[in-house]
Amino acid sequence: MTETTLAIGELEQLVEEILRKGGLSPLHAGAVTRVIVAGERDACKSHGVYRIEGCLRTIKAGKVVPDAEPALTSDGTAIVRVDARGGFANAAFELGAPVLAEKARTMGLAALVINDCTHFAALWPEVEALAELGLAAMAMCPSYASVAPAGGSAPLLGTNPFAFGWPRRDKDPYVFDFATSVAARGEIELHRRAGKTLPEGWAIDPDGNPTTDPEAALAGAMLPFGGHKGSAISTMVELLAGVMIGDLTSPEALEALGTTTLAPAHGELILAFDPARFAQGRAGDPMARAEVLFEAFAGQGARLPSQRRFAARAKARAEGIRLSADEMALLERLREQGLEAV
Amino acid sequence: MTETTLAIGELEQLVEEILRKGGLSPLHAGAVTRVIVAGERDACKSHGVYRIEGCLRTIKAGKVVPDAEPALTSDGTAIVRVDARGGFANAAFELGAPVLAEKARTMGLAALVINDCTHFAALWPEVEALAELGLAAMAMCPSYASVAPAGGSAPLLGTNPFAFGWPRRDKDPYVFDFATSVAARGEIELHRRAGKTLPEGWAIDPDGNPTTDPEAALAGAMLPFGGHKGSAISTMVELLAGVMIGDLTSPEALEALGTTTLAPAHGELILAFDPARFAQGRAGDPMARAEVLFEAFAGQGARLPSQRRFAARAKARAEGIRLSADEMALLERLREQGLEAV
Repeated sequence: MTETTLAIGELEQLVEEILRKGGLSPLHAGAVTRVIVAGERDACKSHGVYRIEGCLRTIKAGKVVPDAEPALTSDGTAIVRVDARGGFANAAFELGAPVLAEKARTMGLAALVINDCTHFAALWPEVEALAELGLAAMAMCPSYASVAPAGGSAPLLGTNPFAFGWPRRDKDPYVFDFATSVAARGEIELHRRAGKTLPEGWAIDPDGNPTTDPEAALAGAMLPFGGHKGSAISTMVELLAGVMIGDLTSPEALEALGTTTLAPAHGELILAFDPARFAQGRAGDPMARAEVLFEAFAGQGARLPSQRRFAARAKARAEGIRLSADEMALLERLREQGLEAV
Repeated sequence: MTETTLAIGELEQLVEEILRKGGLSPLHAGAVTRVIVAGERDACKSHGVYRIEGCLRTIKAGKVVPDAEPALTSDGTAIVRVDARGGFANAAFELGAPVLAEKARTMGLAALVINDCTHFAALWPEVEALAELGLAAMAMCPSYASVAPAGGSAPLLGTNPFAFGWPRRDKDPYVFDFATSVAARGEIELHRRAGKTLPEGWAIDPDGNPTTDPEAALAGAMLPFGGHKGSAISTMVELLAGVMIGDLTSPEALEALGTTTLAPAHGELILAFDPARFAQGRAGDPMARAEVLFEAFAGQGARLPSQRRFAARAKARAEGIRLSADEMALLERLREQGLEAV
């Protein structure tokens, strides 16, 4: 099959056109396009154009407000809050990020709470945006109940992503972003579509027994990574980025949505730290000291997280983004038919 | 062998006497005693009386300032800083915790940075103390290089504990505290003493090959929990609680100490969050909503972390702490001989 190569800007135009045709306001179409194309650009297929259909399905089902105007409130505390008013989270983050950064620089650390958003895409765009501003950042959010806690037998926790970024001078930041389940739900879905069995330890079936069948896994529950430790971190995400911020936990998000095939509505929590402020008065430049640590990784042949993603990004910037004939056909169909296609 | 049962207060008196004979000032003897006895009380043997010898060895080696006066500085930011001045971290935390709590209530979230401390004991005493004040908390610190990063072959990261606490009304808090290595170094040490082999996946030998021999593991490197995800979290701890706060990373701490048998000197980072402040203006009481989540754990037979520890605590409060004849003999020897015994 022939592949098509599009410049990053060309793919952005195409995706934005699809999303606007699907009913998203220019604000949201732009913000969602940026993260979808960033996923494709970074060869992070599970967050690339594959996600457009889910996005359109969520619009069609009336489970997202396609023209919501996010509203920011900020007081004298270290918390800035953006009410997404039922819209996608991405525009809410773009509105809140500069205020969060300013607060972190003034107070040393600060929190951005996004409420009532529909979450879509990965969390690395958030922590990377803050790293570009010279800040370290953590981001986390619930999803919908699809993971059994360690020792449990049924879905309760979400795949609850947890991301972290550390800024580096003249280099791609140190970034990780992972599901607190062994695998992301998207990966199980991709196994199902490809007719492949799952590795052991990923999931349990509806009776609570281990399974390698993607269908049984999707009907049963995924497992947290790292046993009780990953289960604990996932629970922390429910508490901080669900309960504490006054937004839905993963079981509540599933109950509100009634399905696992649409983008879930809940909140998101992002913490930002100013290393310059924290290191003030102490010996050593934190940026330089972090590089010593990163060099030690390389010195023993260990990769930093996201290295493959950054390599793909550099390639895409130089050579464009390659899409398969199937992917191009999907994009064409979505452009022509809009919400009719999903 | 006969066991001895001591009331919690009796064991505290005995341990405090040993630590004062070992040269600790009353401030430090009290603070260190509280965490050691808390470990023993909670049947958390690896942080109980077993740790006294290491504490005394560290004093004897001149690697801790036994009468350091921790100094607190607080400005208008959300950061409070305690310079432990080379003393054990526990007294520094006790000094900083009320100020951290006050800042978290005012600003929503705040950070306590402890610099130049010798770290000793677990992190759950920190997050539990904050949970008792109605705050959610995260705590983390480096240790000394003993864990290979995912994909690496030699010690670089510490066992870097990560702890979290969530307050509960009239109940023990939700608390987890774990090493980001598969196992704590103390567990490998206990296997070595007991002549037991290690489970697979815990460690690599000095050549970077998998091993189940505790001696080879202690000479080689431990492995992070959960593969690249645990490795990433451990690296985050190095960056936030080492580099960012202007204190030693785990490889630096090992280099400064020159051995893995003494308590390491570095810093510690504790974050506190006020759920009432975060949830302000949102529907639902965060304390009540968290209980719904915890009940769902119980409903599917999953344990909350620390449940065993809290059960042991209740038992110790009711019945006292049981110590073996060996443990009593050790305590007697330490009380009589002080630093001569180590």
